[in-house]
Amino acid sequence: MVQVCNKGMDFVLENIEAITKINPHLKQIGNLPAIYHQGVSEQQIPILSGGGSGHEPAHFGYVGQGMLTAAISGPIFVPPCAADILEVIRFLDKGRGVFVIVKNFEADLREFSQAIHAARAEGIAVKYVVSHDDISVETASFQLRHRGVAGTILLHKILGEAAARGASLDQLEALGLQLATSMATLGFATKPATILGDNHPMFQLEEGYISFGIGIHGEPGYRTVPFDSSAALANELINKLKMKLKWQDGDAYILLINNLGATSKMEELIFTNDVLDFLALDDLEMAFTKTGHLITSLDMAGLSITLCRLQDAKWLDYLQAPTDAFGW
Amino acid sequence: MVQVCNKGMDFVLENIEAITKINPHLKQIGNLPAIYHQGVSEQQIPILSGGGSGHEPAHFGYVGQGMLTAAISGPIFVPPCAADILEVIRFLDKGRGVFVIVKNFEADLREFSQAIHAARAEGIAVKYVVSHDDISVETASFQLRHRGVAGTILLHKILGEAAARGASLDQLEALGLQLATSMATLGFATKPATILGDNHPMFQLEEGYISFGIGIHGEPGYRTVPFDSSAALANELINKLKMKLKWQDGDAYILLINNLGATSKMEELIFTNDVLDFLALDDLEMAFTKTGHLITSLDMAGLSITLCRLQDAKWLDYLQAPTDAFGW
Repeated sequence: MVQVCNKGMDFVLENIEAITKINPHLKQIGNLPAIYHQGVSEQQIPILSGGGSGHEPAHFGYVGQGMLTAAISGPIFVPPCAADILEVIRFLDKGRGVFVIVKNFEADLREFSQAIHAARAEGIAVKYVVSHDDISVETASFQLRHRGVAGTILLHKILGEAAARGASLDQLEALGLQLATSMATLGFATKPATILGDNHPMFQLEEGYISFGIGIHGEPGYRTVPFDSSAALANELINKLKMKLKWQDGDAYILLINNLGATSKMEELIFTNDVLDFLALDDLEMAFTKTGHLITSLDMAGLSITLCRLQDAKWLDYLQAPTDAFGW
Repeated sequence: MVQVCNKGMDFVLENIEAITKINPHLKQIGNLPAIYHQGVSEQQIPILSGGGSGHEPAHFGYVGQGMLTAAISGPIFVPPCAADILEVIRFLDKGRGVFVIVKNFEADLREFSQAIHAARAEGIAVKYVVSHDDISVETASFQLRHRGVAGTILLHKILGEAAARGASLDQLEALGLQLATSMATLGFATKPATILGDNHPMFQLEEGYISFGIGIHGEPGYRTVPFDSSAALANELINKLKMKLKWQDGDAYILLINNLGATSKMEELIFTNDVLDFLALDDLEMAFTKTGHLITSLDMAGLSITLCRLQDAKWLDYLQAPTDAFGW
């Protein structure tokens, strides 16, 4: 299938150009693959996130009032380098430090932790949280992968609003940790992703099959099965999430249904309906539900479910607060 | 490719169920394939739109404060029947009449005009506007098709906010007519749509080719050409739109880039960047730009450009007003 791009161009810079042309309050940071929000008060702790690109609208789409102060992207599915991250941290620090949200991938942790250490060595106070909401497993070992996936967007929104309302670095760290350990995500793909500028699907999926527990970087899932129905898929994923989160009747939860890219909005809503039906069977209260393209994997088709136990009414207040971030 | 659905189920009702579960202020109207917004003041003229389904988030996603009061959907790519539309008009009328936004398709006009005539015969004041922004042509005759496509969403937003601020039926009709004749849309597909529940693409597209001037119901375009680049595509479409809209240096415009379904967000932004570059060459002022899944065609991949000449600063004010409609 044709990929809508320009040969020899830097896709990430083209994305940054489009975003900054459309949104006058968003600016590129120097020549870095990074965007910041001009309107953020210097009184608040700036929040930075980032990672490889190919997950649009993540993370640039979450830069805005009450979400991220800045975001930095690497090439497709490759994190930005430590030197660039460090420059962004320096740019953001106004003497109060910087809070960083990192997704749990080996390469992301390597680059971000190197940048954080260097910034601290320069006297900048940096704290961070690592999102690790994915409960998919390694095919060989059955070990949990704990990658950072769609739940990361909840960290953007809730921590972003907390920072806008004056939370300190320590408070953001504590809140981030509580959130990151309250959520779980599991999804499936009906079609693998294809790297933009390449024409090869990143894994093979037989006609009529789906892959459970896929990643957001084109990684295949832990199990490939024939598709039965949306309801059967919802049931299997909800059961796995329940084993992890161990919810009780009457618990309040936050629900995200993430469209990984090429799934139609009609399918997204059919699946959401099935998920809500299964959750209702357990008498869970869905305090906040959002569906859509939250963190994609290029043109992969598939959906994921993120559930986060609502442990504090403030979280709901932060989630419902308005933001001008275009991805939310 | 697997389609995420449940065999033998009514996809539209499953969508309505999901939407009303997530959004407590949105309610189904009786057993009709229709949704209304509970919070709309009885002092304003209610606005109704609708058509076939398969265009999600259109039109249910635009029901909300300052947009549609209600929307009605038929089966996939088939408009709702006149009897159902009439019931919704009766439900919405609180003595001040109802304003209806219809997309220019033969079947839609037939069902909506029958319902409007019947409602008027019952003494309900109904006025309407027909969106016809598509400037694609018939392959055989080269006649303009003038189908109602992505520009319809501008009518939803601007007329919806005008109604919320107290516009009369006559004022809505005049504003609707002015808007509908100020805009044009043209797009392309890189992959045809496949009806949900079926497995056959609605037209054939050779590998490496794109189709210009596609519709939103799976119709092929007027010309199939090998893909060159995003920039070349943007250039061709902008030239066609310019011939139609005849803009002058310095004109102010509203721009929508509509993702028809399966195109990745990264491609959407790359193409948007190219479109903005070509428009900047003509010194046009983009007063408002929005990109995303506005009116889709199931899992078709492709993008369209809608341009609307900004003839009144109020339009911009109405566009920028906040709304709780989840599709906007």
